[in-house]
Amino acid sequence: MANDEDVQPLLTGSGPVNLSQTSEVNVIKKRRSRQNIVTAPMSEVNLSVKNDAESPPNPDSLFAQKPSLTKVLIFLALYLGVGTLCFYLVRHQLKGTKTNGIIDAIYFCVVTMTTVGYGDIVPNSILSKLLACVYVFTGMALVGMILGRAAEYFVEKQELLLVKVIHMHEKNGSDEVLTKAETKKTVKYKFLTALILLLIIMIVGVIFLSFEEQFNFFDAFYCVCSTITTLGYGDESFTTAVGRVFGVFWILSGTVCLAQFYYYLAELHTESRQSVLLNWVLTRKLTLKDLEAADLDNDKMLSPAEYVIFKLKEMGKISQEDVRTVLEGFRNLDVDHSGTLTAEDLSLAQSS
Amino acid sequence: MANDEDVQPLLTGSGPVNLSQTSEVNVIKKRRSRQNIVTAPMSEVNLSVKNDAESPPNPDSLFAQKPSLTKVLIFLALYLGVGTLCFYLVRHQLKGTKTNGIIDAIYFCVVTMTTVGYGDIVPNSILSKLLACVYVFTGMALVGMILGRAAEYFVEKQELLLVKVIHMHEKNGSDEVLTKAETKKTVKYKFLTALILLLIIMIVGVIFLSFEEQFNFFDAFYCVCSTITTLGYGDESFTTAVGRVFGVFWILSGTVCLAQFYYYLAELHTESRQSVLLNWVLTRKLTLKDLEAADLDNDKMLSPAEYVIFKLKEMGKISQEDVRTVLEGFRNLDVDHSGTLTAEDLSLAQSS
Repeated sequence: MANDEDVQPLLTGSGPVNLSQTSEVNVIKKRRSRQNIVTAPMSEVNLSVKNDAESPPNPDSLFAQKPSLTKVLIFLALYLGVGTLCFYLVRHQLKGTKTNGIIDAIYFCVVTMTTVGYGDIVPNSILSKLLACVYVFTGMALVGMILGRAAEYFVEKQELLLVKVIHMHEKNGSDEVLTKAETKKTVKYKFLTALILLLIIMIVGVIFLSFEEQFNFFDAFYCVCSTITTLGYGDESFTTAVGRVFGVFWILSGTVCLAQFYYYLAELHTESRQSVLLNWVLTRKLTLKDLEAADLDNDKMLSPAEYVIFKLKEMGKISQEDVRTVLEGFRNLDVDHSGTLTAEDLSLAQSS
Repeated sequence: MANDEDVQPLLTGSGPVNLSQTSEVNVIKKRRSRQNIVTAPMSEVNLSVKNDAESPPNPDSLFAQKPSLTKVLIFLALYLGVGTLCFYLVRHQLKGTKTNGIIDAIYFCVVTMTTVGYGDIVPNSILSKLLACVYVFTGMALVGMILGRAAEYFVEKQELLLVKVIHMHEKNGSDEVLTKAETKKTVKYKFLTALILLLIIMIVGVIFLSFEEQFNFFDAFYCVCSTITTLGYGDESFTTAVGRVFGVFWILSGTVCLAQFYYYLAELHTESRQSVLLNWVLTRKLTLKDLEAADLDNDKMLSPAEYVIFKLKEMGKISQEDVRTVLEGFRNLDVDHSGTLTAEDLSLAQSS
């Protein structure tokens, strides 16, 4: 009988190979981690590692696909700081509705980097236009790559709260029991959390615009929609100094939250399709032909490991090429050509 | 010796388990296919499949994650058609620079759905404002989910051309040999192709704006940047009927192409990190402790299949939970509790 529970954790560092979690979480983590590689600042890319077994790259650094929230915020502050300074220096080359010099500069930065682009302040010289072009190209990358991390952090925090509230009446166990039982529904909860956050941001926006900018309800709602979608027609925007200070924070959170909402919506869609496939593969009957195909060592029987590889290939989690690549390494290690790896093979390989 | 070459294709339908391709392509395919699930129109989601081994869902339909280009274009045409009709009907509730009624309506649709939002035509009534809000929310999803497919199709076509041109002098073999040898660099080429396409679109835009809209070079360049990033300040936009007809096609291709360019940039980044990890896992020396951990059936030796599972877990491709879930199915099938699956087990299971 296969004793699969005995397998030890493979990597002691943090990373995608986290054995203590459920399959669904791992699927999400893997997918998410891909996005988080993307969200890592470009400065982290330089992994000049020699492919040498003696000096392996630090797995922690390789798997460290989540730049810390602090890093993200520092990066954002730096980016906004430099932008504000630049546009403050060329403030006389900007035209449109103006309030305070510094406030207008930072407001212009945020409106530009989020691609809202109201047009209530626009560059009016070659230099300022070029500056705006550079700022928006880099800003798009920043919003897409860095701020997703901040949004995820916030959603994860709020999600836990939501899960607790939902189950307040059902369970009164500890947090650990609760979160462990609920991780399976995590995408659904993240989606729900993002939706609630989005609605709160929209309501706050409508209320603020109604009072501070004296919009009627419909215009305030229209301006909110036009802003968080980054449409920014510009017929209605923040025109007062107070409004623009509020706008800086509100525009950043609104646009990022909506983008994250769409991301979770897509995740949810993927998830539901994958679970149908998973169920089908797991419940499908094994035929004699399958048995033959899965029999890697041609001994007319399937070991637990052979069965696992067959099913994982069927699920599309691994490919035949993955298996082939790894098996090449196996043949090199199997020094005595017995078809199996033993402690002797390892010591033989080390002595040679 | 393991006879791994004997393994038959597991699914006869098209799908991620395509054995004829290289590992890199599979990695990309898998990742891409995730995005393509996302890009599938929502109408395709309804897979009301019973989890019944006797009536499996059609794998082709499950794996059909790429909606055809025709479908995408029909969907886009429908969406634009309905939008144009709506905004044509409320054309007197739009204010701003106007040319021809129909042209303005379709131009307004494209400017709205891509979130460029110049503001040269804006809704001026509650009805038209609400219409614009609905249109931009659905448009964002459409551009993100559907048009990525069209962009990918085009980039793939152009990529092949690029690869051929690059190797025209190096090789004169058949196309098949060429593409097979080059698939490993596919993300790099896709990125390069998107970059070239983007530059062409930008140059065409600058030339058109200079002649048709009488912009000077800097203003034309500024308007091009402001448009493809969906910033759309609106101080410079398409004001003539001819310009707007051109704008409809140009804005759609420009914004989608830039988004795809950023997507490939992120892919490239992920790819380079993953290949470092892959190399490290494949060249890392196996220790006695690893041997113990990988030994699923506790027979003090590693079969090829056990080794494969261990290395794939190390790469993060599969999780312990994946293995555990599949092994549960194995135990159910192993009717005679021999620890292996044989033809007898299968016939016993069928008779019971």
